[in-house]
Amino acid sequence: MIRVSILGATGYSGGELIELLLKHPAVSLKHFTSESSAGKPVHSVHGSLRGRVTSNFIKADLKKIAADSDVVFSCYPAAAGIKLNAELVAKKVKVIDLSADFRLPTAALYKTWYKEKHTAPGLLSKAVYGLPELFREDIRRATLIANPGCYATAAILSAAPLFKPLAVDASSIIIDAKSGTSGAGKKLSADYLYCEVNENFRAYNVARHRHQPEIETVLQSFSRVPALVTFTPHLVPMQRGILSVLYATLKKSTSTQALLALFQRFYEREPFVRILPEGELPQTKNVAHTNYCDIGITQDSRMRRVIVVAALDNLVKGASGQALQNMNLCFQRPETEGLL
Amino acid sequence: MIRVSILGATGYSGGELIELLLKHPAVSLKHFTSESSAGKPVHSVHGSLRGRVTSNFIKADLKKIAADSDVVFSCYPAAAGIKLNAELVAKKVKVIDLSADFRLPTAALYKTWYKEKHTAPGLLSKAVYGLPELFREDIRRATLIANPGCYATAAILSAAPLFKPLAVDASSIIIDAKSGTSGAGKKLSADYLYCEVNENFRAYNVARHRHQPEIETVLQSFSRVPALVTFTPHLVPMQRGILSVLYATLKKSTSTQALLALFQRFYEREPFVRILPEGELPQTKNVAHTNYCDIGITQDSRMRRVIVVAALDNLVKGASGQALQNMNLCFQRPETEGLL
Amino acid sequence: MIRVSILGATGYSGGELIELLLKHPAVSLKHFTSESSAGKPVHSVHGSLRGRVTSNFIKADLKKIAADSDVVFSCYPAAAGIKLNAELVAKKVKVIDLSADFRLPTAALYKTWYKEKHTAPGLLSKAVYGLPELFREDIRRATLIANPGCYATAAILSAAPLFKPLAVDASSIIIDAKSGTSGAGKKLSADYLYCEVNENFRAYNVARHRHQPEIETVLQSFSRVPALVTFTPHLVPMQRGILSVLYATLKKSTSTQALLALFQRFYEREPFVRILPEGELPQTKNVAHTNYCDIGITQDSRMRRVIVVAALDNLVKGASGQALQNMNLCFQRPETEGLL
Amino acid sequence: MIRVSILGATGYSGGELIELLLKHPAVSLKHFTSESSAGKPVHSVHGSLRGRVTSNFIKADLKKIAADSDVVFSCYPAAAGIKLNAELVAKKVKVIDLSADFRLPTAALYKTWYKEKHTAPGLLSKAVYGLPELFREDIRRATLIANPGCYATAAILSAAPLFKPLAVDASSIIIDAKSGTSGAGKKLSADYLYCEVNENFRAYNVARHRHQPEIETVLQSFSRVPALVTFTPHLVPMQRGILSVLYATLKKSTSTQALLALFQRFYEREPFVRILPEGELPQTKNVAHTNYCDIGITQDSRMRRVIVVAALDNLVKGASGQALQNMNLCFQRPETEGLL
Repeated sequence: MIRVSILGATGYSGGELIELLLKHPAVSLKHFTSESSAGKPVHSVHGSLRGRVTSNFIKADLKKIAADSDVVFSCYPAAAGIKLNAELVAKKVKVIDLSADFRLPTAALYKTWYKEKHTAPGLLSKAVYGLPELFREDIRRATLIANPGCYATAAILSAAPLFKPLAVDASSIIIDAKSGTSGAGKKLSADYLYCEVNENFRAYNVARHRHQPEIETVLQSFSRVPALVTFTPHLVPMQRGILSVLYATLKKSTSTQALLALFQRFYEREPFVRILPEGELPQTKNVAHTNYCDIGITQDSRMRRVIVVAALDNLVKGASGQALQNMNLCFQRPETEGLL
Repeated sequence: MIRVSILGATGYSGGELIELLLKHPAVSLKHFTSESSAGKPVHSVHGSLRGRVTSNFIKADLKKIAADSDVVFSCYPAAAGIKLNAELVAKKVKVIDLSADFRLPTAALYKTWYKEKHTAPGLLSKAVYGLPELFREDIRRATLIANPGCYATAAILSAAPLFKPLAVDASSIIIDAKSGTSGAGKKLSADYLYCEVNENFRAYNVARHRHQPEIETVLQSFSRVPALVTFTPHLVPMQRGILSVLYATLKKSTSTQALLALFQRFYEREPFVRILPEGELPQTKNVAHTNYCDIGITQDSRMRRVIVVAALDNLVKGASGQALQNMNLCFQRPETEGLL
Repeated sequence: MIRVSILGATGYSGGELIELLLKHPAVSLKHFTSESSAGKPVHSVHGSLRGRVTSNFIKADLKKIAADSDVVFSCYPAAAGIKLNAELVAKKVKVIDLSADFRLPTAALYKTWYKEKHTAPGLLSKAVYGLPELFREDIRRATLIANPGCYATAAILSAAPLFKPLAVDASSIIIDAKSGTSGAGKKLSADYLYCEVNENFRAYNVARHRHQPEIETVLQSFSRVPALVTFTPHLVPMQRGILSVLYATLKKSTSTQALLALFQRFYEREPFVRILPEGELPQTKNVAHTNYCDIGITQDSRMRRVIVVAALDNLVKGASGQALQNMNLCFQRPETEGLL
Repeated sequence: MIRVSILGATGYSGGELIELLLKHPAVSLKHFTSESSAGKPVHSVHGSLRGRVTSNFIKADLKKIAADSDVVFSCYPAAAGIKLNAELVAKKVKVIDLSADFRLPTAALYKTWYKEKHTAPGLLSKAVYGLPELFREDIRRATLIANPGCYATAAILSAAPLFKPLAVDASSIIIDAKSGTSGAGKKLSADYLYCEVNENFRAYNVARHRHQPEIETVLQSFSRVPALVTFTPHLVPMQRGILSVLYATLKKSTSTQALLALFQRFYEREPFVRILPEGELPQTKNVAHTNYCDIGITQDSRMRRVIVVAALDNLVKGASGQALQNMNLCFQRPETEGLL
């Protein structure tokens, strides 16, 4: 059995992880940490787990966690878990970090976007970006996995087939993405009160969201092409789901069928990417509570503009499900185990 | 008093119109037509009007309506009202048509997009596009007003200041728009059932929605520049509100402040357009139940890409409120009467 | 013009009041107080007011408010406004208090339910309960009006016709009420985050909600019958609206028609109570954004059980609209002015 | 492997069943019937199943289904499946009927409430009511199982512990229940359009809903006490979940602790009923996508009124999950298999 602990387990991705791990046949759940809820039953925070998880949250304790865990999932907010995770890695515990702490290539870029000094910069080059569709073999060998951002997962999966070989103008890319509200986590901010979100739709951090550099650097590291992406996120009055629409200018005219074939070939062996037939487009409800990313392709041929629509569940393929997929890879389990 | 009748008054824009007209001090409400609900009380369809509107729906009767009305608001589905409206115009009754029947310049284009033969093609060139911010003087003198589409209103108000003089590449324009579900009307389709819309987000008719040619032809007729627009609509799980995001490539680099100043000057005397200060972006909740269109501007200066975000209420500025604004103009009333 | 100030104006009932007062022809808006937002524009909190209200919030200043106001609407949380309101009353400014501070008859009862010492107990007997349908003449002469609770308004309007003369067993009453989330105000609690409210339905404070004693004491003071009410509130995943279902055992068998006639007679001159015909039941959407309370009546004749369903908008008839109705009465204005 | 077919598989309970059955280790899925969608891929209706279920819907064919199935789940609307199900039973195929066709004890009662002649009245006494908590042993031996109604499941589980021995006045029972909109199925009615349900709350069929006689007759058959229940259903603007509040008058005063103990004893071996500790109440989100029924108990001791709050997922414990629990019992599988 793989012994698993979850750090910072009171939030939405923590709750989703527990639900998924409970159904995984090869996992033994060990510790759930929380500074604020230590001592309280896990079900006092995640009410659906009453009667199914009987343990209490504990405070993070390096020794205990290292001794009892083969892998930890770290769900801390930005910068809060860097030190602990570095220590766990040093003790050969595998770390799958759902925060952004190890996603960007340099401490300088991290400081620019997250306003925090990175306290383990030496690990940045060792961390593997945990997007199996692009980096599967690296993930199998990794000790520290930077689990991708939810928006970034949708955006990169939409863009990657267009980048190798480069089929579009690499500075023409616009990603107009929309996310359900669980993406914001359980932050206690008036902006996320029911009455502020319901019956409201808005864009935020337009062209200055933290996933923009993540998308750009990952596309670049994958394709060796310098990509420039204008990224616009929106808040949708619903709980889970991301729909991302990519616009890019094709280098030369082509048919929609040819574009579809390009995507089908790129993802033909992928268990969690579904390419839709011509004329169909993804909807978030079809991927809710699943680890799938659905992708549809169309174009405005007048301007040689390709349009790629992707849908995924921000808590599953965009966070906890993908983390579990990464765990399966790290521990030589079937990649889809516990996820279908 | 302006004597007003509403044709096809059982839908959402009909209901919104009645609510607005009840508060207008210079309006006398005459007839409400409906083929399916004729004989039934208006409040049997619009429950909020119980005790406030005591009349019944009647079947459309040209003579009666022409005799009793100075103006009609026509809320029929596409093509259903062309004949009656043409007859009313012939009898000098002013017609404000909330359908798309008189928005496109030619019968051929109408046939292409609406799959219907236009039965009054001679009126197409006489109809005025009822967007006061661009065509106010024509509206004052019009007998037949084509009330703009909801998406088109948001898109054109976002784009117009960039077109005269032309500040952007006219084929670089992308409009990624999102609408609440009342925009689909009361159509009895499984797609609009609560359980299909709630907790779901999806794009539809990407690059082939009927408002795309409307946006292009209006921008062209206003600016004399051939505009090409890729238009992507989405369905948001909420009732009312449109948020539209325009992307375009600037001809030359400029500051966001300069872009804001351009929009402020363009709309400085407009009672229903609010330009937001730098750093702020519109939200649909701030325009719900109002006739305002809120606009915010930012850019991704790396690619000289301007981003214009607009929000309006699809049932008010996107339909019934704008129709009332047009009525005020036609009848020399204060333009904001009944709308603030 | 009636000079009006609003104390504690940043919440949902404050925002609703401003919207309503802007449309009232005899009102001049003076001051908006807020301790936390003093100095900021009113539209920075209530975004829909941009361009319509240009003043800033100020800190509460007794002298300034008293000098400039004929009436204040007080929207403070429990106990926070008692002192200021008592001082304003002493200076002959009319106070319409939307909090519960003056709704209960004794300081002891207030302490029991609100856990606060009442610092102006002498005013409790002078305050008039601002439910016009029961206490209209007292309201006309009042200086201090305790504006009713939202649940209490629906419950009392449902029960009153059954109490004078007493038609039911006065200890058989159950009120099972459901409220939209704006009823909870803008409290920054995890319970009211979007992801906790959306797709969730729950009861809370069952048989121990603060409106239970309010309903009981008001029914008692109105009817001289000691009423015992089991009151169950619920949180509905929507923004505004209360639906309240009252169950009571009739003293003797009667027809539903007779029950309807009883309610129709009781409310026959009331501008804001609509009794629905047999077979129809209220829905919150029909009263949203209005000052109406819709009431429908049915029964389970096997057990002589009458069932009264009432719907109102918690922010209008349940708070700000009713407050304005009370203002109209106090200042000898038409009771419906600004409310239709 | 248990060979399973689903009749009338295009609706919400059909979709939920397929999702659940895909995760069941001992099930082999055979046929999915639909008259309207025969020939189309299952994923064309249930989009989440793309790539997971590759078969098409077929027309119902008695021979084929009987030959290939050990059990069928029948999801037809009322009366539509009686004949086919009777034939399958005759051929020794086990039938778990999710409709109401076999829930009521007599054809006369069925006619009264469902307005249809029952065409297999002889089977009514052979059918077992599929509520495992009350009728487990009968279910194990049954060939025809009437799967309980969603409201009825919540109501009966709330009431049963109070009935044996009888602790309440059996004619004092009120059930005020609230359901998410998937309970209405995919009916194409304007009442269930997004814009009619969202931001709306309403009661319907008060004291005349079809689950009222179901609740009464089942309580009676279980306890031998004639129960009279006033049942009020409501429509909640959410997708899934029922919250049911039961009020009843206790025969004698008792403590809430004693009431809790009564419920705990009654359900102590039940895998899917969770009794909450004193002071806690169920919420629908804690049971969403699970087969649990959560129950909380409180009282208004002044009137000896017990209040039992129950929550379940109408599509799982209220329909498809309970159906699967019944299948497990029929086929001597572990009762919770595929359901945890």
